[in-house]
Amino acid sequence: MEVLFTFTPREVHQQKLITEFPEVNFHFTNKDKTRLPSADILVTYGEDISSEDINSANKLKWIMVASAGVEKMPLETMKERNIVVSNVKGIHKTPMAESVMAHLLALKRSLPYLYESQRNNEWNRKTGSSELFGSTALIIGPGAIGSEIGRLLQAFGVQTIGCNRSGDAADYMNDMVTIADVLTALPKADIVISVVPSTKETKHMLKKEHFDAMKNDAIFMNFGRGDLVEDKILVDALQNGAIGFAVLDVFEQEPLPLDHPYWKMKNVVISPHVSSHSEKYVERTLEVFAPNLRKWLAQDANPTNLVNLEKGY
Amino acid sequence: MEVLFTFTPREVHQQKLITEFPEVNFHFTNKDKTRLPSADILVTYGEDISSEDINSANKLKWIMVASAGVEKMPLETMKERNIVVSNVKGIHKTPMAESVMAHLLALKRSLPYLYESQRNNEWNRKTGSSELFGSTALIIGPGAIGSEIGRLLQAFGVQTIGCNRSGDAADYMNDMVTIADVLTALPKADIVISVVPSTKETKHMLKKEHFDAMKNDAIFMNFGRGDLVEDKILVDALQNGAIGFAVLDVFEQEPLPLDHPYWKMKNVVISPHVSSHSEKYVERTLEVFAPNLRKWLAQDANPTNLVNLEKGY
Repeated sequence: MEVLFTFTPREVHQQKLITEFPEVNFHFTNKDKTRLPSADILVTYGEDISSEDINSANKLKWIMVASAGVEKMPLETMKERNIVVSNVKGIHKTPMAESVMAHLLALKRSLPYLYESQRNNEWNRKTGSSELFGSTALIIGPGAIGSEIGRLLQAFGVQTIGCNRSGDAADYMNDMVTIADVLTALPKADIVISVVPSTKETKHMLKKEHFDAMKNDAIFMNFGRGDLVEDKILVDALQNGAIGFAVLDVFEQEPLPLDHPYWKMKNVVISPHVSSHSEKYVERTLEVFAPNLRKWLAQDANPTNLVNLEKGY
Repeated sequence: MEVLFTFTPREVHQQKLITEFPEVNFHFTNKDKTRLPSADILVTYGEDISSEDINSANKLKWIMVASAGVEKMPLETMKERNIVVSNVKGIHKTPMAESVMAHLLALKRSLPYLYESQRNNEWNRKTGSSELFGSTALIIGPGAIGSEIGRLLQAFGVQTIGCNRSGDAADYMNDMVTIADVLTALPKADIVISVVPSTKETKHMLKKEHFDAMKNDAIFMNFGRGDLVEDKILVDALQNGAIGFAVLDVFEQEPLPLDHPYWKMKNVVISPHVSSHSEKYVERTLEVFAPNLRKWLAQDANPTNLVNLEKGY
């Protein structure tokens, strides 16, 4: 049994796997795919795998994606080959929710202004600080990550409105609205946060009318996928004052082109798709992988966090 | 009955008081003390009142301080004159706790680095981000503000240790330690936060041995008063690696002298005594003041948040 990693966990984590699974040949590489033809299992961040790679991997039965989104992977080829695909859904919630809270609190408590004053050697107390307390937030996609954000927002005295297809209740949401009815909820929200994946339904889901419906000082945060809204619609909304501010972790094109207007906009914070980064990321990935590998070796080809290749998540 | 304000609330808040108390003459000024001799009640931020001012205010019976600390006020003169002093203890907890959380999360989630990358037009994903989750925090002074910080820290999965004179239980603290025993707790803490007022006991309470006992990567936050630790001790601890980082809202000398080493230190964030600032500050001050004024007019000279001039808080 061969397991190919296209990334390299720290030595301590490699040794743990090797010790726990003496019957398995692990190959830890840095994006090296030469061993794909003999690999039974592939562990990858997902972005480095092409349709040709899949076709060259004759023995491959299971791909464990150390990420949440699979939209950059050759889903059709994987489906044809009947490859089992699982991901690490759930491990992103802590770092991502902390990033969302960090950005919101930093803006409310004037941290960019404090940092700038310090750089300029200025004791400047006119911060114009406000509070997160008493705000209303609309969370588009109140799943594992969205609900964790909701839990933390509620601890700060924020009213949360969840938005999903069904309008069915979600954890840590004071209220729910369907995507079809979201225009009725947008005018209430001081903060609009999206954590939805990229699917056929979510692509370009937010349109000009949605930004027009938001408060003029609303903070829009996209921490899901960049194709939720066309860049030019969001740039317009920020430049014409339809909304007040945007914090963006994802973009239509990544890396964000260096001549993109976002870079210079005073009401945009660019987070270069790093909101799930954490020193604990690989450790948590392997905590998902190891029990699934044990099951796999016992002929149970049904890992947790199975990805539905039809739906794309 | 004359009430002198040495600061100017917004028109809407002035009108509310005037309407609610038609029998009272309100004078809203900008640090103007010419009406002190005829004032029965003074509403002030505290820093602008001298011993001479108190002696010139022959009719003055009550000073309402729109602040928490009174250490800059002429306490002896006020005591001799038997003036009732009350403050706005409690209204600082929301903005201050949000500021503490903002700074901690910003550091853990690499916000200064993201801001700098954006300024430099760089898509730089090597953030080295970590998480607040799983940390341990020591809170020196777990009163109204400290416990609110504890509540929010716990929501993020942080273990909280409260530190007070008695070691008696405080809200939202997983554990307690006395000030006398604090050296035993400091090595456990990833974060050390002080919110204690300035009193005889807290002046220079933290010494070199305390910083030596902290973790080398500990984050120290002083959001209480600047005389808790001598500047030179803290500068040394930060420069020789006894601790990792400091976020300072208060300083031995305020404004912080422009040639102070803190300004240029990469492991110091300067917050110019603004952590309690909030657009809601004056509104909340008047929410404390109005019921007390009603009681005062009904001959009840016992406002909430009475300051003990002996203890200084």
